[in-house]
Amino acid sequence: MAVETARARTLTHADPAGVPLQAALDALADPVRRSILRDLAAHDDWTRACGTFDLPIKKATASHHFAVLRSAGLIEQRDEGARRLNRLRRAEFDAAFPGLLAATIDRAD
Amino acid sequence: MAVETARARTLTHADPAGVPLQAALDALADPVRRSILRDLAAHDDWTRACGTFDLPIKKATASHHFAVLRSAGLIEQRDEGARRLNRLRRAEFDAAFPGLLAATIDRAD
Repeated sequence: MAVETARARTLTHADPAGVPLQAALDALADPVRRSILRDLAAHDDWTRACGTFDLPIKKATASHHFAVLRSAGLIEQRDEGARRLNRLRRAEFDAAFPGLLAATIDRAD
Repeated sequence: MAVETARARTLTHADPAGVPLQAALDALADPVRRSILRDLAAHDDWTRACGTFDLPIKKATASHHFAVLRSAGLIEQRDEGARRLNRLRRAEFDAAFPGLLAATIDRAD
């Protein structure tokens, strides 16, 4: 079991079932966030660490994008040592917003 | 046939097939614009005039929202006398962005 760190304890997750449509659309209406989601959709759960995404932005900006995705119920994160791993919450988000991910990240921009 | 007026000639429409996903999402990520689209979806084509929508905003702001919807390929407008009538471009938009309208306006906010 991973040792819980102060950083890990600050991670809060939203249940997609309780996310307003507006928050879901705001999260998806950004090309960097969609690229993160497409990357996660193309890989197995928990295999992608935050620092390994090829994003044309600064680290602090990337952290903000991950936080937006987390609060919209789109991703789950957990810390393993120095790495913050990610999982696309496909099934839960699809249950709350049927068809929305398919209409946005399962196509090219 | 309606007489073309100077106002009518300023109306430009975007083909949904050429609208970027980002523009479609930006247009849909606004609660006032979604309420306009839901209203149009609930009525026959060309039966709703711009001034008859129950919107909690000023006329100039409403005009901006209609223009955004038009440029995203979501609505078509035409002038009949003093009235500007609207039509939801459901079939064309669905063809360009399968499932996106269903995931956004066919549900409560």
